[in-house]
Amino acid sequence: MNGLHLIADIYRCRPNAELLTRRAALENLCVSECRNAGLSPLGAYFYQFEDETGEPAGVTGTVVLAESHLAIHTWPETGDVTLDVYVCNFSRDNSDRARHVFQRVIDALAPEETVRHEVIRGRLPVEA
Amino acid sequence: MNGLHLIADIYRCRPNAELLTRRAALENLCVSECRNAGLSPLGAYFYQFEDETGEPAGVTGTVVLAESHLAIHTWPETGDVTLDVYVCNFSRDNSDRARHVFQRVIDALAPEETVRHEVIRGRLPVEA
Repeated sequence: MNGLHLIADIYRCRPNAELLTRRAALENLCVSECRNAGLSPLGAYFYQFEDETGEPAGVTGTVVLAESHLAIHTWPETGDVTLDVYVCNFSRDNSDRARHVFQRVIDALAPEETVRHEVIRGRLPVEA
Repeated sequence: MNGLHLIADIYRCRPNAELLTRRAALENLCVSECRNAGLSPLGAYFYQFEDETGEPAGVTGTVVLAESHLAIHTWPETGDVTLDVYVCNFSRDNSDRARHVFQRVIDALAPEETVRHEVIRGRLPVEA
């Protein structure tokens, strides 16, 4: 269960594609960037919010990975997004793969500001 | 997007039910405890790992909430689990609901040790 959990609060995004408001666009981005990074999506659930007139509003979703998960939530009213990528390093060190998908998704969102946290999950490796 | 993200690394669990190895048991626990806490599950994806003989091994899954998400991963080899509950406080303060479901799931896992982190997501409220 040792692993790396990358957390970002992402502000004032202005992506080219409709990533903040269209379920399919955001899901495709997240699943394909996980695959491109060498991670293994097992399944995904993304939900489309609608406003009171039935127009697409925010999107919320998760990609379940063999290596753990990605979670993303959008607030198009303000252009803000939260992103989590957590990978365990059970059979190999997936930290670089996690950093790759994390940065690729942030870049696609074209934010003005990103606040990042990192949490080391599980026990630290015992020094030899 | 302001909200509370609760993180736990949970060690040496010995639950009564087969929560570490059975997808349905773990999914039912997580979805029902979210509902009981007053949160709103929109969907869930849980995956059953199997060992080389086809017997149930670990489980990994996420519950997508109107208020954000719950994510859980089990390692039955060691009895360890990682748990995340993140709620945004967009339309109301969901922090107490998050703490409730977080503690209920941990209690059901009957661990010997739990290491917790809290991350405040988004901007802090501006003082009047």
